[in-house]
Amino acid sequence: MSETENNRESQTTSTDGAEFYGEDGVIRADVIEQISDAIEASDVEQLNRTVENLHESELGDLIEALEPSERQELVALLGDQFDFSALTEVDEAIRMDIVTVLPNEQIALAVQELDTDDAVYILEDMEEEDQADILAKIPFTERIRLRRSLDYPEESAGRRMQSEFVAVPPYWTVGQTIDYLRDTEDLPDSFSQLYVIDPTFRLVGAVDLDSILRAGRDVRVEDIQRETRHAIPAEMDQEEAAQIFEQYDLLSAAVVDENDRLVGVLTIDDVVDVIQQEAEEDFKRLAGIGDEELSDNVISTTRSRFVWLLVNLATAIIASYIIGIFDATIEQMVALAVLMPIVASMGGNAGTQTMTVAVRALATKDIDIYNSGRIIRRELTVGFINGMLFAMLIGLMAAAWFGSVPLGLVIATAMIINMVCAALAGILIPLMLDKLNIDPASASSVFVTTVTDVVGFFAFLGLAALLLV
Amino acid sequence: MSETENNRESQTTSTDGAEFYGEDGVIRADVIEQISDAIEASDVEQLNRTVENLHESELGDLIEALEPSERQELVALLGDQFDFSALTEVDEAIRMDIVTVLPNEQIALAVQELDTDDAVYILEDMEEEDQADILAKIPFTERIRLRRSLDYPEESAGRRMQSEFVAVPPYWTVGQTIDYLRDTEDLPDSFSQLYVIDPTFRLVGAVDLDSILRAGRDVRVEDIQRETRHAIPAEMDQEEAAQIFEQYDLLSAAVVDENDRLVGVLTIDDVVDVIQQEAEEDFKRLAGIGDEELSDNVISTTRSRFVWLLVNLATAIIASYIIGIFDATIEQMVALAVLMPIVASMGGNAGTQTMTVAVRALATKDIDIYNSGRIIRRELTVGFINGMLFAMLIGLMAAAWFGSVPLGLVIATAMIINMVCAALAGILIPLMLDKLNIDPASASSVFVTTVTDVVGFFAFLGLAALLLV
Repeated sequence: MSETENNRESQTTSTDGAEFYGEDGVIRADVIEQISDAIEASDVEQLNRTVENLHESELGDLIEALEPSERQELVALLGDQFDFSALTEVDEAIRMDIVTVLPNEQIALAVQELDTDDAVYILEDMEEEDQADILAKIPFTERIRLRRSLDYPEESAGRRMQSEFVAVPPYWTVGQTIDYLRDTEDLPDSFSQLYVIDPTFRLVGAVDLDSILRAGRDVRVEDIQRETRHAIPAEMDQEEAAQIFEQYDLLSAAVVDENDRLVGVLTIDDVVDVIQQEAEEDFKRLAGIGDEELSDNVISTTRSRFVWLLVNLATAIIASYIIGIFDATIEQMVALAVLMPIVASMGGNAGTQTMTVAVRALATKDIDIYNSGRIIRRELTVGFINGMLFAMLIGLMAAAWFGSVPLGLVIATAMIINMVCAALAGILIPLMLDKLNIDPASASSVFVTTVTDVVGFFAFLGLAALLLV
Repeated sequence: MSETENNRESQTTSTDGAEFYGEDGVIRADVIEQISDAIEASDVEQLNRTVENLHESELGDLIEALEPSERQELVALLGDQFDFSALTEVDEAIRMDIVTVLPNEQIALAVQELDTDDAVYILEDMEEEDQADILAKIPFTERIRLRRSLDYPEESAGRRMQSEFVAVPPYWTVGQTIDYLRDTEDLPDSFSQLYVIDPTFRLVGAVDLDSILRAGRDVRVEDIQRETRHAIPAEMDQEEAAQIFEQYDLLSAAVVDENDRLVGVLTIDDVVDVIQQEAEEDFKRLAGIGDEELSDNVISTTRSRFVWLLVNLATAIIASYIIGIFDATIEQMVALAVLMPIVASMGGNAGTQTMTVAVRALATKDIDIYNSGRIIRRELTVGFINGMLFAMLIGLMAAAWFGSVPLGLVIATAMIINMVCAALAGILIPLMLDKLNIDPASASSVFVTTVTDVVGFFAFLGLAALLLV
């Protein structure tokens, strides 16, 4: 999870990844079996032997691969040998399953050993009562740090930061600094920068360790410090913080409170998780599966999917209503019923393509007032060209299948109309939703499908009613 | 792009992001206008003043926001003041547009100034002839480094690595090492670890800078070095390397050749781009827009979308064929034509939900032989429950709309059948494609939609033919 954790782990771990994971990158079957057997036999020694050499993420993978009942038993059997940082690597539902059956005393002891960011990750989803009880059992200094992180809003930089860092005054020399680092016992496990602060803890700058190593012992810290342009306010949303990391290729950034006082450090490894989550979320939302996790149970999965399907039912009923208008036409020419889903479905697919590009571009801020005109023109052109191509294909096919050139012409025209409307809807709907501050990833797809269904059925059946029957 | 670049930039940049970007995170309109005017007036001085304080990613954003013709002019006007690392921040099409009009001499001069990873990023997509010509114009040492990176396969760790690093022998003391760092001129701009190598350049270990700073001057490097468990073979695919970074929360990793000799360093900031690209690619493929970029032109966009739409046309025609089987039934009862898209569309949406979960879980290796049984059972249960719920809803509605309880029962039954089949198809098709080594993200959606369309129409119209007419 965190930088310090990371380096400490890689120093002590000796299991080779290749032995734990098979060729396909999945935990080997015999490893799982061995663990399952050991759990069943309550063979604590065997469990300890297997688990002590695992990286926290490997232990997390192992927990996820076990049956739910085995997970709790494993953690119970390992007792204080269980590395709680593995809980930061598993789905929220699994974490909660494990944490709720553990005594608060054990959790309190365990989270003291973790970096603050990992501890907060485990504590933040717990019941308020349990959280307070656990915090009360933690020594004062550590408790204050955790309390402060937990006081920041959910998904803020303050929640993700580490409160452990090394700070020095600007007037120290490099020699003084190196001596301080050599002589001080309770430094963070690992760090890659020093922060420079004034007597009131206000952030003045940062010094990379390589600058310290390159400078002579008499050089003052203030002469080799660099500006910290990208200090992150603790209240800032983690997604926004992640974007700053990405844009400026940061490896770590100081986190400051509302008075510009240094309160923690945010490191890229924590941010990587955020970046990936955010990229995933948009696309899950496009498919209407929101914040679902793989380990969610039947009830919460059913509920989360139901809402989306209900909205889509409304869309489908609107489409049905349009078809209903033309029931007399269909009765006279049943070929229309056979062909009509083609027009709607092609429009739906073309609209989804454009929409996916637009939603992603909005999320990465790659679309804006300067290029939106260009992109709308491009999408319209692409829609028109593909519309023409597929109009010819489907027109010829329909004419041949039902032996009617007029029917071919009608479906061809409807295809062009729907593909152009699909392109327009695919780009304009996400842009409009974004302007209205509605998340385009969650809402676009319903509107786009409604447009392509309604236009598809209406254009095809309407033209047929006018021209064919 | 790279770690060293990053730190050098943040040291010298003084423009505040807030002035360049507006509230919405998009470049401010007046900044763009100012630049456009300066380009039109060939006001090199004004351009230099605005651009010299920009971070490479800000300059990249600026280039993307300009009109295509303005981009080339901007780069031409800036001449050797243009920071080529900005080209690593723009879409490939835009990069190629700019690079192809520049004289090879200028490119050769510019890439020498870049870190090898950035230089390779610019050179790798060029025509082989231009590439060779540029390399021939670069001094020997730098040329050898670039040549070596370019000799590794596309999208490999060797292409993304930086060839600049600091390596020391294991028998050096901390004091010797610090003196070496103080006295050596041509060190990389910034670094966070030293690598320990034997006389044949074989990787022995790594030392974090904080360990150096904490140890006394007499301590030997070999006594504070740590194992480098996660050394990355240069031939390894960048995606696989990114997964190792993610799994073990690495900040950087040594890259070694086939003889375990240290050839470079891969840093997390390069890997972040890979992680995000890979997450994006899967979802773009799900929507059939492959590796499309926002700046692609009409022709390449049309072509990339056409293939996907053609495949979907085949799917739609199969669905039409199924409807065609029941044309006599529809002729007798036109309500069937009105209602049939509802069953197919609900199945399509439910199938897509399940499929999106499955494709993502396969990509992150969160689904495997241990939990796939559990997940298939869950999806089937969710499909059945939602099927029952929507069967009731749509059954009642259809019965009321067309005044026919039997019609309501038929559509309700068809809905349950299709929702269960959608769940099965949504999970089994990606799993099977993955087993067959076919990318589930690219291919799943076509097969799933085919299943939900065919089953939807067949179940509904078939039951109607049996029971209603």
